[in-house]
Amino acid sequence: MARKIRMGMVGGGEGSFIGAVHRMAANLDGQIELVCGAFSSSAEKSKSSGEALFLDPERVYGSFEEMILKEKELGEDKRMDMVSIVTPNHMHFAPAKLALENGFHVVCDKPVAFSLEQAKELEQVVNKSNLIFALTHNYTGYPMVKEARHMVKTGKIGKVRKVVVEYPQGWLSTKLEDSKQKQADWRTDPNKAGISCCMGDIGSHAENLAEYITGLQIKELAADLSTFVEGRLLDDDGTVLLRFDNGAKGSLFASQIAAGEENELKIRIWGEKAGLEWLQSDPNTLIVKWLDKPKEIYRTGINYGYFAEETANATRLPSGHPEGYLEAFANIYKNVAKTINAINDNRDVSGLDKDYPKIEDGVRGMAFIEAVVSSSNQNASWVQLADWL
Amino acid sequence: MARKIRMGMVGGGEGSFIGAVHRMAANLDGQIELVCGAFSSSAEKSKSSGEALFLDPERVYGSFEEMILKEKELGEDKRMDMVSIVTPNHMHFAPAKLALENGFHVVCDKPVAFSLEQAKELEQVVNKSNLIFALTHNYTGYPMVKEARHMVKTGKIGKVRKVVVEYPQGWLSTKLEDSKQKQADWRTDPNKAGISCCMGDIGSHAENLAEYITGLQIKELAADLSTFVEGRLLDDDGTVLLRFDNGAKGSLFASQIAAGEENELKIRIWGEKAGLEWLQSDPNTLIVKWLDKPKEIYRTGINYGYFAEETANATRLPSGHPEGYLEAFANIYKNVAKTINAINDNRDVSGLDKDYPKIEDGVRGMAFIEAVVSSSNQNASWVQLADWL
Amino acid sequence: MARKIRMGMVGGGEGSFIGAVHRMAANLDGQIELVCGAFSSSAEKSKSSGEALFLDPERVYGSFEEMILKEKELGEDKRMDMVSIVTPNHMHFAPAKLALENGFHVVCDKPVAFSLEQAKELEQVVNKSNLIFALTHNYTGYPMVKEARHMVKTGKIGKVRKVVVEYPQGWLSTKLEDSKQKQADWRTDPNKAGISCCMGDIGSHAENLAEYITGLQIKELAADLSTFVEGRLLDDDGTVLLRFDNGAKGSLFASQIAAGEENELKIRIWGEKAGLEWLQSDPNTLIVKWLDKPKEIYRTGINYGYFAEETANATRLPSGHPEGYLEAFANIYKNVAKTINAINDNRDVSGLDKDYPKIEDGVRGMAFIEAVVSSSNQNASWVQLADWL
Amino acid sequence: MARKIRMGMVGGGEGSFIGAVHRMAANLDGQIELVCGAFSSSAEKSKSSGEALFLDPERVYGSFEEMILKEKELGEDKRMDMVSIVTPNHMHFAPAKLALENGFHVVCDKPVAFSLEQAKELEQVVNKSNLIFALTHNYTGYPMVKEARHMVKTGKIGKVRKVVVEYPQGWLSTKLEDSKQKQADWRTDPNKAGISCCMGDIGSHAENLAEYITGLQIKELAADLSTFVEGRLLDDDGTVLLRFDNGAKGSLFASQIAAGEENELKIRIWGEKAGLEWLQSDPNTLIVKWLDKPKEIYRTGINYGYFAEETANATRLPSGHPEGYLEAFANIYKNVAKTINAINDNRDVSGLDKDYPKIEDGVRGMAFIEAVVSSSNQNASWVQLADWL
Repeated sequence: MARKIRMGMVGGGEGSFIGAVHRMAANLDGQIELVCGAFSSSAEKSKSSGEALFLDPERVYGSFEEMILKEKELGEDKRMDMVSIVTPNHMHFAPAKLALENGFHVVCDKPVAFSLEQAKELEQVVNKSNLIFALTHNYTGYPMVKEARHMVKTGKIGKVRKVVVEYPQGWLSTKLEDSKQKQADWRTDPNKAGISCCMGDIGSHAENLAEYITGLQIKELAADLSTFVEGRLLDDDGTVLLRFDNGAKGSLFASQIAAGEENELKIRIWGEKAGLEWLQSDPNTLIVKWLDKPKEIYRTGINYGYFAEETANATRLPSGHPEGYLEAFANIYKNVAKTINAINDNRDVSGLDKDYPKIEDGVRGMAFIEAVVSSSNQNASWVQLADWL
Repeated sequence: MARKIRMGMVGGGEGSFIGAVHRMAANLDGQIELVCGAFSSSAEKSKSSGEALFLDPERVYGSFEEMILKEKELGEDKRMDMVSIVTPNHMHFAPAKLALENGFHVVCDKPVAFSLEQAKELEQVVNKSNLIFALTHNYTGYPMVKEARHMVKTGKIGKVRKVVVEYPQGWLSTKLEDSKQKQADWRTDPNKAGISCCMGDIGSHAENLAEYITGLQIKELAADLSTFVEGRLLDDDGTVLLRFDNGAKGSLFASQIAAGEENELKIRIWGEKAGLEWLQSDPNTLIVKWLDKPKEIYRTGINYGYFAEETANATRLPSGHPEGYLEAFANIYKNVAKTINAINDNRDVSGLDKDYPKIEDGVRGMAFIEAVVSSSNQNASWVQLADWL
Repeated sequence: MARKIRMGMVGGGEGSFIGAVHRMAANLDGQIELVCGAFSSSAEKSKSSGEALFLDPERVYGSFEEMILKEKELGEDKRMDMVSIVTPNHMHFAPAKLALENGFHVVCDKPVAFSLEQAKELEQVVNKSNLIFALTHNYTGYPMVKEARHMVKTGKIGKVRKVVVEYPQGWLSTKLEDSKQKQADWRTDPNKAGISCCMGDIGSHAENLAEYITGLQIKELAADLSTFVEGRLLDDDGTVLLRFDNGAKGSLFASQIAAGEENELKIRIWGEKAGLEWLQSDPNTLIVKWLDKPKEIYRTGINYGYFAEETANATRLPSGHPEGYLEAFANIYKNVAKTINAINDNRDVSGLDKDYPKIEDGVRGMAFIEAVVSSSNQNASWVQLADWL
Repeated sequence: MARKIRMGMVGGGEGSFIGAVHRMAANLDGQIELVCGAFSSSAEKSKSSGEALFLDPERVYGSFEEMILKEKELGEDKRMDMVSIVTPNHMHFAPAKLALENGFHVVCDKPVAFSLEQAKELEQVVNKSNLIFALTHNYTGYPMVKEARHMVKTGKIGKVRKVVVEYPQGWLSTKLEDSKQKQADWRTDPNKAGISCCMGDIGSHAENLAEYITGLQIKELAADLSTFVEGRLLDDDGTVLLRFDNGAKGSLFASQIAAGEENELKIRIWGEKAGLEWLQSDPNTLIVKWLDKPKEIYRTGINYGYFAEETANATRLPSGHPEGYLEAFANIYKNVAKTINAINDNRDVSGLDKDYPKIEDGVRGMAFIEAVVSSSNQNASWVQLADWL
């Protein structure tokens, strides 16, 4: 019988941004209960974080290894069902692998790993496991993103010709990593972030969004990355020319030095019959531009009968009640929880519940990051994404 | 020691809109746990609602009376701390009174009661009780609303001269109540909604928002209400001229027949030095208009150091991650939970945690509704709000 | 045979805002030539103004009387065809009357006169004259305003229920008239502006726009006017409750103390089937809101085949080339020029060319102003507009 | 003494889009008078066009050669001062050269010529002539574009790092040239348009705007052009990676198959201290995004004292009166007319009056077009713009 899914968390201690996000997203729908955690590499910090979260001190652990092994020993009616991994990139692989190998489902922050090699190894672990592995490419959780995908899939805009996706931020316009700012510190550190800062952190979101909505795959790309802030060790900006498998073309740009920008993730797709536009900072609006009639403005709302069922499934409120970042993020957790419940009960998993990013998305994302860096190192030569897959 | 606050719910069974909203709002921050409920006047519906919420069947009750009295008998470490009341207007008073009289804190949907008389009686019960009574005028929970209030309070815009607040909706443009639509049914029924539909349901939100942000009180008003849909029993539209206690003037309009509108709650305030504008469908933006320099766009974000502490307290995410309706709603629950924890621990309640709408707001709201109806019945004559208080 | 229409101007000398506007509007389409003027009550200023406009010094006059009488003596192939009156309100009537009585067509700035009495007298002069009298309620010249009117007229939005029109400005937030600022000086002076500042200057635009688009007439109104700036002699703000002849209701507000606002003339109209929204600061957009399908965004463009012919007639450019205030203003002059050419050639005047505001609009506007002031003087009592007509 | 400048026109007969635009732009400020024209290669069409424009039939010519030579024979007080060339690209060079060689100033539509070679030859003619040659890169005529340029020049946004400029249109999404549509016909014809359709027509506007505002020069570029509509002979879409002479990077995209787009020319520039954003379809708004304080919204208006003098010089109206495409276009003509008057009077030309695009801009534009096509032909290899200059 369906019940609240029990979650353990790796990382996300005090001062973490994304840990709190994952917890709120998991809380929202009352489908998941946080029962344990290894919130920090410092046992003391982990403990105080657990206390602030009202956890049983017995289940606040000093390391992810400890958590996984101790939880495994608990009774089936008590131990966690899944692990949420919210650490920096270099700390995704090990806990994910250990969790899967010990029978726990995994929700993991993106990019999926420190390197493509790790990602591919993890993919094998996942595939062997019969367990769920969900990747929090949260932007695909927005209802209007799902509706856009549906419109493309059902041919409403005709064959896709052009895709322009962008993700400008301005928060790394100065050398923020020189302060103790936690987010900047690890993202600009090659030992923690991997081979890319900007493209790894947000470029990969843009890539994922473009492929998710269009249903197309990037075939080749040419990238020009930059590091504008002196002394920074990784890229903080880049533009990528894109060619898709159906002949469509496009571009992707991501920047962390776009002064004054917040998170202006935006995608525009033009087909033979219409264009689509979606902007993350106005997420409940989908603009549909027709060749021969006025533009239409679609707006999130469970009351609108004309939406696809996957859109409705991702919507909680009637129109006019803005849904935001956490609601989109929560759609991943909600679907994961429903899927786990179905598995536990030996029920078929509904197609709608399967709608969350998976290990394949993670591998493609890592391939994208490595291909982009490689192209840029060759002065924006064209590279085939397939060469990394 | 702080712990999760235990909540029981009255109303909010299957098919309810606002019940689900309250639950998500209560869930979001992990400060509250739903432990019991009387979700419907039908015991069977209540039961199936409770099951879908993973509740212990023992604590799913057939009536609010049963819930309150049975929970009272449970041990202090188990019984609910507070009751959330999410029924139609005519069913607010009785459970609220009974809960308070039996020692339970209350969160209640708005308007606070079926009539001003009930509201005043409830106010006495609250005042006698030493318990918390929070009213979900949720729009005041938005960070940019709090910042607007702060800007007025600290004199940034100078003495307020003009306030224009409006709340157009279009969902009652046709006689929806003739179908079985649950929301329309009770809101247009004088036996459930009270003496007003439009002004009671959304006009009172507009009134509350205007007084909250400006810190002013409406002194007199002249209202012209209408019922545009034939056969409807209560108002579905109205405009109100306002005069405030400091000499400011303004207007309020609310409509449920504004075809094609969602929830366009909007407020504009002009002072001697600047103007403010906030729109619920773009809730993370606050526009500040100066006499002699370019307009400024304030945006929600915990990273922006220049915001007031009450704004920061109501914000969960860095800029660029849109917060929405549920997050604003959740700010009421979060503050209530923190306040209850402080009371339980005999700690002083932080000023920030006290920032939620209270019984006084409810009484003013009911006075507003009754004054508006009275003025309209006299062909929009001026009436003094004080005559109702 | 059609030729350029020859125009003389009264007022509009150096430092005038609206004089320059009228000249650019008249120039734009190459249908009108400025040939003479009495630009100022100071003969010297008039002369230097005429020089800057490259006029023949012989035809730069010291007074409107001189201009009208001297031009009359010129040959038919030389003398002006029409007079453009761009003086403050108290100087509209005399030159308009004299021009008409001497056989010259007139284009006059709004409001049409200093008082309703003058307006009515002028109406008689116009009616006797068989000459054109055009009033520059320029906002009705915008293509999307004409399309909105067309949509209402053809029943697209159903019976109109609610009209909300507003015109906030902030430029008189301080006592600007104490400086030498020319625009503020006469508008706040009862001897030049008439009985109202804000309602006369901009409230009357809002009234005209509402009646133009809806095709309805205001039947009764209740107005609450204010003077917020100490020592100011006329109103600088006001809100008016409206009731229309078809049973629709609404409100109008105009303000000159809405700090930081430019010219945010905005109208929203809700019918039984749809709503319309138009905003002067984004004039090429018309938003159409449906009950049961996504919002549509109509945009100005001669290429869009779906527009009404009066809309197309008011449009100069393909979509994407923003048309502005001057183009809308020029639509009045263009239609006037075409009408005069038709009259001169004894051709029938095309219905499209007749689409400009006329003396009747002016009389209604003055009645509106006087009714509003009267209602406000009686503490916002309802008054019937018919009592002034 | 200053007088109206007399203009002749080449091209722009009935059915022309841009001819009418040039005439309205020249009319607007009353500084220029159209006195003659060779409006079409068909003498009859030219005649009827001239008649509709109220021209003296004697001065409506059958060819540009006839016009230039006949006008030259007229007296100095009658003959045209300048020629406006509004023909398709392949017909710019010959009339421009002939006009200059016969002593007439020239205003010419863009791109300046059919080929870079022609452009360079024309540059020599201009340089020898001591006459004015103005190129209608009209988008640089907008006040907020000039303010943006000023802000960059004066260091307000710090060193420029990133420039993203784009110009999507959708009007060639289908094979419109197969109909008789005049605009599509010549633009897609290599014999009339030159080597590029999309990049030549609108990409060059984007390039000009980027260099104008930033004051930077494109140093190298890599371009990926496409022809999406089957059977079309020239590009209808393209994306270009940009590297600027100061080390800034960026991208430019232009498309004519971006279904549903009008003329969404948009530029974003990010410097070390702030970002700028301007969009042609909302041309009176300039968004300034700061690192550490709220975004500012600058709005066109002659009343705003804080603008640069070149901004004020390009502004006609107080704030809140939208200026549009024609006003921006007219700023070129106004400055040209003032410059010609100064030259005629042997006065120094004011620096402000010199603010219009010149032959150098035209040569750079042609070099850009040829470089882009060349890069694209080499599969988006990097090319140095200097190799074409």
